Amino acid sequence: MSRLDKTLDDVRGLIEAAGFPVALHGDGAFRCRSVASLERAGADQLAFAKDERTLGSTETRAGAVVVPSATSRLAAHQLVCPDPFAAFVAVLRHIDRERRAEAAGVHSTAVVAESASVGADVSIGAGVTVRDEAEIGERTVLHPNSYVGRRSRIGSDCVLFPGVVVMEDVTLGERVTVHGGTVIGCDGYGYIQREGRHVKIPQVGTVEIGDDVEIGSQVTIDRAALDATVIGRGCKIGDLVHIAHNVTIGEQTLVVPTARIAGRATIGSGAVLAGAAGVADGVVVGDGAVIGGSSVTYRDVPAGAVVYGDPARPKTHQLRIEAVLNRLPQLERDLRRLLRRSADRDEND
Amino acid sequence: MSRLDKTLDDVRGLIEAAGFPVALHGDGAFRCRSVASLERAGADQLAFAKDERTLGSTETRAGAVVVPSATSRLAAHQLVCPDPFAAFVAVLRHIDRERRAEAAGVHSTAVVAESASVGADVSIGAGVTVRDEAEIGERTVLHPNSYVGRRSRIGSDCVLFPGVVVMEDVTLGERVTVHGGTVIGCDGYGYIQREGRHVKIPQVGTVEIGDDVEIGSQVTIDRAALDATVIGRGCKIGDLVHIAHNVTIGEQTLVVPTARIAGRATIGSGAVLAGAAGVADGVVVGDGAVIGGSSVTYRDVPAGAVVYGDPARPKTHQLRIEAVLNRLPQLERDLRRLLRRSADRDEND
Amino acid sequence: MSRLDKTLDDVRGLIEAAGFPVALHGDGAFRCRSVASLERAGADQLAFAKDERTLGSTETRAGAVVVPSATSRLAAHQLVCPDPFAAFVAVLRHIDRERRAEAAGVHSTAVVAESASVGADVSIGAGVTVRDEAEIGERTVLHPNSYVGRRSRIGSDCVLFPGVVVMEDVTLGERVTVHGGTVIGCDGYGYIQREGRHVKIPQVGTVEIGDDVEIGSQVTIDRAALDATVIGRGCKIGDLVHIAHNVTIGEQTLVVPTARIAGRATIGSGAVLAGAAGVADGVVVGDGAVIGGSSVTYRDVPAGAVVYGDPARPKTHQLRIEAVLNRLPQLERDLRRLLRRSADRDEND
Repeated sequence: MSRLDKTLDDVRGLIEAAGFPVALHGDGAFRCRSVASLERAGADQLAFAKDERTLGSTETRAGAVVVPSATSRLAAHQLVCPDPFAAFVAVLRHIDRERRAEAAGVHSTAVVAESASVGADVSIGAGVTVRDEAEIGERTVLHPNSYVGRRSRIGSDCVLFPGVVVMEDVTLGERVTVHGGTVIGCDGYGYIQREGRHVKIPQVGTVEIGDDVEIGSQVTIDRAALDATVIGRGCKIGDLVHIAHNVTIGEQTLVVPTARIAGRATIGSGAVLAGAAGVADGVVVGDGAVIGGSSVTYRDVPAGAVVYGDPARPKTHQLRIEAVLNRLPQLERDLRRLLRRSADRDEND
Repeated sequence: MSRLDKTLDDVRGLIEAAGFPVALHGDGAFRCRSVASLERAGADQLAFAKDERTLGSTETRAGAVVVPSATSRLAAHQLVCPDPFAAFVAVLRHIDRERRAEAAGVHSTAVVAESASVGADVSIGAGVTVRDEAEIGERTVLHPNSYVGRRSRIGSDCVLFPGVVVMEDVTLGERVTVHGGTVIGCDGYGYIQREGRHVKIPQVGTVEIGDDVEIGSQVTIDRAALDATVIGRGCKIGDLVHIAHNVTIGEQTLVVPTARIAGRATIGSGAVLAGAAGVADGVVVGDGAVIGGSSVTYRDVPAGAVVYGDPARPKTHQLRIEAVLNRLPQLERDLRRLLRRSADRDEND
Repeated sequence: MSRLDKTLDDVRGLIEAAGFPVALHGDGAFRCRSVASLERAGADQLAFAKDERTLGSTETRAGAVVVPSATSRLAAHQLVCPDPFAAFVAVLRHIDRERRAEAAGVHSTAVVAESASVGADVSIGAGVTVRDEAEIGERTVLHPNSYVGRRSRIGSDCVLFPGVVVMEDVTLGERVTVHGGTVIGCDGYGYIQREGRHVKIPQVGTVEIGDDVEIGSQVTIDRAALDATVIGRGCKIGDLVHIAHNVTIGEQTLVVPTARIAGRATIGSGAVLAGAAGVADGVVVGDGAVIGGSSVTYRDVPAGAVVYGDPARPKTHQLRIEAVLNRLPQLERDLRRLLRRSADRDEND
């Protein structure tokens, strides 16, 4: 599935080039057709064992394995490496680059405005639209049917996968990856009520995405009403996440798939919003804070705090509450019994 | 709205051809313009009454009705059929096929790689992209602006609606339907932290979708990190569902709209994830298990179990807890009263 | 970011033209390059202070400010207006119109069926598909790669942003705006089980969207099984909302981003579904009712009621329960203590 098609000698070369020491035990001419997990790998595949324990406890038919130390337990050819996972990731990175390589150039069916500025070695696929005064940085890849609005600036070495929509006046930094179908810069949800009707507050702000951000599929990042919705450097945003207007997120924060952040919320750096977590409008979440899975906070969360539940509470407190909830029907029965006894006593007094 | 434009004789023919016995009471030359529900149908429309009770209790102005038995209560023309719903579905299937029929051929604005393999009678719409070495099975329809990545294989009789994105190396079985905008094979959410930065684990696995699977709109099905994300035969996946990397789902499982399944979770066959249900990462849900609406399980669920709540508990236990919660404020007041009395007694002792 | 590029005299003209009285204090020739919030505005930007208190409490470097009354506290040029926010919105509306203006005409790469009917001054962008017998009203804008299915009718002055998909037989009223990537008229989730397999109930109904509706990005609005899914005039639907088949929503109802409405639910007029709120299938929510954030109702909600929680309860009751939950571990300890005492007493009796 994940074509590699390299000899073990070549794989060793890849790992060394990534800066990891590696020794070959076995036949360097052995051909690794592809990669797989230790459990699933077949005779022509390369796998890895992250540590001695995994190596000892997992049956494998892999033809070659990246291991922490050489072992006679395996019939497989071995690449011995102190950090097998890191070494393996270097191989995966090579595969990823190869399979998604796109030739530079503009496809004949793409529509690129004359006033747009397109950097060197850019690849613009079929059906792509780049509007007036947009800027596309060097080596950036715009996959088929993606769209870049007027005056938006996409940095260098970015990738927009098929169907991605970047609306007007949006800025993406360097090395930003956006997965298929995501929309950046759609309007925030802002209305005022006048005489029983909802009147739109035009959303004329923008979105600013920092360097090295990755954004999943079907994400919506709304443009600000005024000013900017900001996503800091190195953030990783999962699939189906919603980020509302005027949200600010610091650097290196993780927003796991299906999480959602309401308008004007501020999330610090190095924070984690787990899957389906929610942050209510205007809430401030501190640096390094963690909002648990499916947990929703309607109040500010201090830096470093870990909160769970809906409404979110400090994790230990929430877990204690949940434990009592399990016993709640019994607890009520006990209380009823006491109430009856108390009533009996009162009668007897 | 749902054009039929057939005589009642023709409709009878359709139902018979689908294998259901049917008798006509009324004028076979009566023209059914379209279909509607019994409540909404007008004089030129065909409706159905699923049983005697519905027939008896519903006012209708339908011109023709599929009924379980002939009745003088209705002025309408009648098609008498032991299973009116099944017979009506046969008519709906005909309408559905007609209104969505697409001529075979490749639209002049589609971009199909030379190395792609395209089966007989395939329909490829405007703005479609089919990349190198992709395979499209016979009679499959790729609607406008859909995308099939390199080396992906789409079976025969599949339908990709407008804007669907199938990334590289993905496999779809036979008769798979994917609704508009859905993305299959985008990257899983996988990073390791190194020196305060999140480093991507390339997601070089794939997605394998079985025969007869239907997938709604705006769904994200992530490719595996290694190996494959697997969705078994006959599964039905609703809109806005998220299926993370390395998830495995058995056969004939229902994943209702807005449900989400985190990484490496394993769902059995014949299971049901109700609307907005969640399954945490690595969790195993057994065959035939049911996760209730908006319920989230962080633990394995045995085969056949029905769990509700967040965190999910056995349904009866959860319902009991919710009932006590309704009385919780009163319960606390009662407890306080007892505490005061107990304190009074202690004083008096 | 939000280019204005007008003199203060011109801005005054815009505000007056929108029907608001306004007086200039300062230099009418001052050039406002763009707009920003009071906090962020720079020397060449126009901002607004919604009231005296904001004006008094906010530091600003804005070059010009729309204010409720003239003040010597600001060095900025001032436009004095009784309702500064309304006046400012008039300016925003002008910016919004300018930056998104599209020239009338059909792009050479668009594919418009011969039998489609296209009104005057329509703008059809690159890669757009308009199918047979579709109707596009006057001045409507179809952005690149959007799709209008067979026989669908889009009213006048509508906007479909990039990648929007409107399936067949769907009706949109006048002045409907749909943001990028949204799909309207995909199939509802409807199956019957026959011999252990899920058999599809063809979804041959339609979707009817009223005038002045706005719909966010990545929304899914399913077509009805029979009849129609209906969204009333003036409703505002946020990003990533799911509206299932045969749902009916009244007029001027707010459905905030990530809310979801299951099949056959009926929502009244002037209601509010807050962020991530859920309505279960078949449930009736009355006019003016409010479902709180992340709250899910499985039962009918009376008109005007405000419900919170999952399952949703009247707001005050839910808040009381949540307050007791915070004390639940202590409450259990107190109960245990009483139980021990009661047991001691029994022993002593």
